[in-house]
Amino acid sequence: MSDHLIGGIEPPYYTVVFTSVRTGDDEEAYAETARRMEELVRDVPGFLGHESARTPGGIGITVGYFRDEEAIAAWRADAEHQGAMRRGRADWYERYSVHVGRVERSYRFDHR
Amino acid sequence: MSDHLIGGIEPPYYTVVFTSVRTGDDEEAYAETARRMEELVRDVPGFLGHESARTPGGIGITVGYFRDEEAIAAWRADAEHQGAMRRGRADWYERYSVHVGRVERSYRFDHR
Repeated sequence: MSDHLIGGIEPPYYTVVFTSVRTGDDEEAYAETARRMEELVRDVPGFLGHESARTPGGIGITVGYFRDEEAIAAWRADAEHQGAMRRGRADWYERYSVHVGRVERSYRFDHR
Repeated sequence: MSDHLIGGIEPPYYTVVFTSVRTGDDEEAYAETARRMEELVRDVPGFLGHESARTPGGIGITVGYFRDEEAIAAWRADAEHQGAMRRGRADWYERYSVHVGRVERSYRFDHR
């Protein structure tokens, strides 16, 4: 598993925080769609990266990093992504929240 | 484990995204300090909540929600928190990144 962290992007940029509780249904189709979305989002101009963590039996948090609002809008408008979101609401997510923030400062620490 | 999600806060507010890779050292002291910090931060005026997820063997993501910059500054200035951050850099974190974002919009979904 990659333990790369996203950092060192010059502000301003945007974080899209997506927190979710899964239904646990249909694990395989979910994983396949998640992989496909990770592939697809890389083609969005202004997409800067994403990070995900999920505590077993708990919540998941995904953070998407985008250069500007246009990049976020382009990703939201993607037809295949819209299909995945519909499927997510129907089958995969018990609930979720999304928080779109404009980042004006960031910092990082590396032990080495 | 709680599967409550933070949502429905009236913008504007702030998200502090903290992503980290742990050293794996000193697990017990880390957990104790984390619990103490969760207790302490609740006393900060303008603290709105937090969420955490960690993929076993992977990265951790914690999101703190704050009403304004003053609340974030107060939490950063807390002496006990500063001690924990120093300890974190010395012993617990291989690396981390922090992204402070001003949230202008958010949405949520609940299956029920």
